[in-house]
Amino acid sequence: MATLKLPSTVPSPSEDCEQLRKAFAGWGTNEELIIKILAHRNGAQRKKIQETYSETYGEDLLKDLDSELSSDFQRAVLLWTLEPVERDAYLVNEATKKLTASNWVIMEVACTRSSHQLLCVRQAYHAKYKKSMEEDIAYHASGNSRKLLVPLVSAFRYEGDEVNMTLAKSEAKTLHQKICDKSYNDDELIRILTTRSKPQLNATFNHYNDLFGNTITKDLKADPEDEYLKLLRSTIKCLTVPEKYYEKVVRLAINKLGTDERALTRVVITRAEVDLQRIAEEYQRRNSVPLDRAIGVDTSGDYEKMLLALMGHGDAC
Amino acid sequence: MATLKLPSTVPSPSEDCEQLRKAFAGWGTNEELIIKILAHRNGAQRKKIQETYSETYGEDLLKDLDSELSSDFQRAVLLWTLEPVERDAYLVNEATKKLTASNWVIMEVACTRSSHQLLCVRQAYHAKYKKSMEEDIAYHASGNSRKLLVPLVSAFRYEGDEVNMTLAKSEAKTLHQKICDKSYNDDELIRILTTRSKPQLNATFNHYNDLFGNTITKDLKADPEDEYLKLLRSTIKCLTVPEKYYEKVVRLAINKLGTDERALTRVVITRAEVDLQRIAEEYQRRNSVPLDRAIGVDTSGDYEKMLLALMGHGDAC
Repeated sequence: MATLKLPSTVPSPSEDCEQLRKAFAGWGTNEELIIKILAHRNGAQRKKIQETYSETYGEDLLKDLDSELSSDFQRAVLLWTLEPVERDAYLVNEATKKLTASNWVIMEVACTRSSHQLLCVRQAYHAKYKKSMEEDIAYHASGNSRKLLVPLVSAFRYEGDEVNMTLAKSEAKTLHQKICDKSYNDDELIRILTTRSKPQLNATFNHYNDLFGNTITKDLKADPEDEYLKLLRSTIKCLTVPEKYYEKVVRLAINKLGTDERALTRVVITRAEVDLQRIAEEYQRRNSVPLDRAIGVDTSGDYEKMLLALMGHGDAC
Repeated sequence: MATLKLPSTVPSPSEDCEQLRKAFAGWGTNEELIIKILAHRNGAQRKKIQETYSETYGEDLLKDLDSELSSDFQRAVLLWTLEPVERDAYLVNEATKKLTASNWVIMEVACTRSSHQLLCVRQAYHAKYKKSMEEDIAYHASGNSRKLLVPLVSAFRYEGDEVNMTLAKSEAKTLHQKICDKSYNDDELIRILTTRSKPQLNATFNHYNDLFGNTITKDLKADPEDEYLKLLRSTIKCLTVPEKYYEKVVRLAINKLGTDERALTRVVITRAEVDLQRIAEEYQRRNSVPLDRAIGVDTSGDYEKMLLALMGHGDAC
């Protein structure tokens, strides 16, 4: 389900570092070489490259990339090079800052990562920002979105397959009642969404559909423009059908007047090693255009090459 | 600060198992031998004994202890033998059951363990109960206490010493304002208590005292009998001066008409390897009686011997 393509024989970290060093040397930067290497190494390999680079040259690979590259391409390469949990910590921290605030990014990280990964992100956040993730989110968010986001990021959901059908049925009724009453920020509704395991929630939403004839997300569309309701619907999608959620993020990013590069980059970078293949399938089904072609039309230069490389295009070296 | 006393030479786990097996053999049980062994082994050693026992005899030490012992002594030995994180998971689970419900136990575990320990308790809870801890707490608690307890157990507080004094001052003012308004369940008040690091909270409460002339716990005594306010005050004590909180739990347990053995057992068992020495000092200072003497007056038999052994009395073997 990942799209990342590794070379048949992966060079040693020191060989990779030497090549990267060459790509940085002299006037101008060899962006293509950087893509050929970094966009074809997995998380563990990139980590090893970073360590070797620092041991060999006494310098920080991320800092060197930062000074050699620019704009969207720079952001994509930097985010990609970071370890996944550090990257998530970085994205969430950015999402709590005024100018780059985004409840979506916070919700995404909270709902699409495994319980264990989310814990590791929270640990990485401590190490990097000397604060807790929920502390920053609770401080910067407010109102209904805070009421939803703080328990979402603090959850450590059970990950087994066991499902309690009686509970699923009764909680489906609770959810329906709250939605009928338009109590979208009700404590019970938020408790269910933020604490139950993903398989349990799936069963609950299925019962909801069976009992009341509509999907829960449909019933949550009372006011399509309400930002909190949008966040609630997306939370449910992320918890149950993340590939559909991501398809929509990419679709909106591409269809915008002027592409939303931040969103596009985020999806490609964070999902290339996870489920970008499934997201691309969803995209093609929904838009009748292959995702790589759509990206090719909407982006250009090294940035385009980087994204397409992560989608499995081009040669690895 | 722990009171646990280990023998100068600790026997091997197989020797310990052999002795325990002897204590169980024939008519009657040798309770004293059980105490001499188990009450003088630390967490890692008890774990090894459990493993060796199961490997050697194909039986579960906890089950055998359960069938050999009875009443308060049984509960003390079983709780003690469990690994600390499993014990905490057990105590919290018990605290979410109707007949043994206790918001205090949940709050205690959430506020007096380190962030890392609390995570491990949540993992142990998954393994044992096939659910998440916050899921059970959110389901069983309600109202204001739920609003406080769920974020308390879900928190992963930063544990560094860095303190932001400007923030401490502004949040002290926020807390004071909410308390003046009697908004004890206010979102901001709960956000501060449930997300900030312990050193940061300590600074905030100090500013509170400096700025407004009263400690925050004093100002939270508006209605001394209100259960939620009591829980709020205890939360603050657990986060900043846990030994004082525990001293009071023990004092109330002992001074009750008929000792509260569950509370007494819980404090001695969960703190013997942590800070029972400090708690005993607090107890003596507050009551002018040494804690071990008070326990001796209020309890008897093997139960008394077990508690006193954990306080450092008696011979280890």
